[in-house]
Amino acid sequence: MEVFFGNDFFYDQGSKFVRLEGEESSHCIRVMRHRCPDPVDIIDGEGTLYHCTLFDDNPRSAVAKVLEETPMWGMHPYSLTMAVCPTKNNERFEWFCEKATEMGVDTIVPVIGEHSERKVYKTDRAKRVVLSAAKQSLKGKLPCVEEPQSVSDWVRGGSCDTASLRLIAYCFEDGSSPRQSLSSALDSYLSRNPPSDGSLPSIIILIGPEGDFSPAEASLAMENGYLPVHLGDSRLRTETAALFAVAGVYYRFLMEGDRQQKQ
Amino acid sequence: MEVFFGNDFFYDQGSKFVRLEGEESSHCIRVMRHRCPDPVDIIDGEGTLYHCTLFDDNPRSAVAKVLEETPMWGMHPYSLTMAVCPTKNNERFEWFCEKATEMGVDTIVPVIGEHSERKVYKTDRAKRVVLSAAKQSLKGKLPCVEEPQSVSDWVRGGSCDTASLRLIAYCFEDGSSPRQSLSSALDSYLSRNPPSDGSLPSIIILIGPEGDFSPAEASLAMENGYLPVHLGDSRLRTETAALFAVAGVYYRFLMEGDRQQKQ
Repeated sequence: MEVFFGNDFFYDQGSKFVRLEGEESSHCIRVMRHRCPDPVDIIDGEGTLYHCTLFDDNPRSAVAKVLEETPMWGMHPYSLTMAVCPTKNNERFEWFCEKATEMGVDTIVPVIGEHSERKVYKTDRAKRVVLSAAKQSLKGKLPCVEEPQSVSDWVRGGSCDTASLRLIAYCFEDGSSPRQSLSSALDSYLSRNPPSDGSLPSIIILIGPEGDFSPAEASLAMENGYLPVHLGDSRLRTETAALFAVAGVYYRFLMEGDRQQKQ
Repeated sequence: MEVFFGNDFFYDQGSKFVRLEGEESSHCIRVMRHRCPDPVDIIDGEGTLYHCTLFDDNPRSAVAKVLEETPMWGMHPYSLTMAVCPTKNNERFEWFCEKATEMGVDTIVPVIGEHSERKVYKTDRAKRVVLSAAKQSLKGKLPCVEEPQSVSDWVRGGSCDTASLRLIAYCFEDGSSPRQSLSSALDSYLSRNPPSDGSLPSIIILIGPEGDFSPAEASLAMENGYLPVHLGDSRLRTETAALFAVAGVYYRFLMEGDRQQKQ
């Protein structure tokens, strides 16, 4: 199955149409050689899949007529925000974005820590990676890649979503605030907020740079409701730690699915 | 912390020494500029860390004197073999090797499936990636990268370790053999083989190529004791599926650690 991305909708004579933008049009018509009235599947990036028939095979501005809509397509049963310090090597962060999209993530926030080697991050490449991965892994909803902000700004303002489980993974152990494991934190949260309640469990995980968070950043996060967690005994690179957190959440909800099936 | 790799040991006048080979010597002496008698840490790739003092700072053949040994250094509490079809793009498979090493894996077997686009795989680059990742993530034991073999040879002969949990992840659902989730398979195995028994839980996971396993390969695996599993609702690329399996096992044992702590 192959999907295209388009969110420029219009109506004509009672029918709904969607126009593909430049690159997507070119990919659909020039590369994949679709012609009217081929069936094409289009995601809007908000969570809906549109089964369409190609209506105008202009390679610069293809238009498809919507036949059927599948909302919540390729969605996961939770909301996950990953606030991650971009790595010195951009490719490693982009790799994280790709893999996180495949497994399931809603928002990626590049955060800049006091110890970050990379102080500036441009999001255009990550956005392209995320779009391509969402299409490839058949997700109706595109993860949002936010503009970078400092760890302390994010912790103080950006993530003031007090209903979410907020976790900060750091490596140092200062004794004052013992860290629990990621798995234990997810278990406690899910036992207090069973997913069957109707509302989507919401999780925010903060992952530091190669040089770890500063003690001041970790304290600030904890003052703002973040629980300190560790990711086990392995020393993981920044992007591996971030991906492991995404995989852990995905795995934990796979378990939740097992339980619901048994009931 | 920084570690070097060396497994050429010798004894002189009652002391134990280890010689670093070419690249490691050069890295230790030329790049890191160590001089006698700097303290250096060396892994033997078998699981032991050697705290040493540099004894000969020859950049082509450095020698360190062993002061102290830490066996089982950076080990994980299970044995994991990943038999994975190499991806068409080599970098994606090498990326898997790096990340799997960081999280914890014992053996990586490149297996060639009937639908594999890549029919030939050379292991030298993967071996270098694994060595570098093991040093970086502070593992005493190097994962073994085996020579490639066909899926059917591996299933019939290479993995005839009947005590292990053997899992095959494939995408098609033929109805005849319903797949359980990875998490459910790990749960059942661990409830039957609790890790506290002294023996290391052993898990083998088989991951197919971009074009999936052939039905014949899947049947052959099941005849040979493999249980069919799925990895949840997300459509994952080969290398993402393989890494998710590694992350899932790591996560599952993180949970096991939580339980043991509670007891």
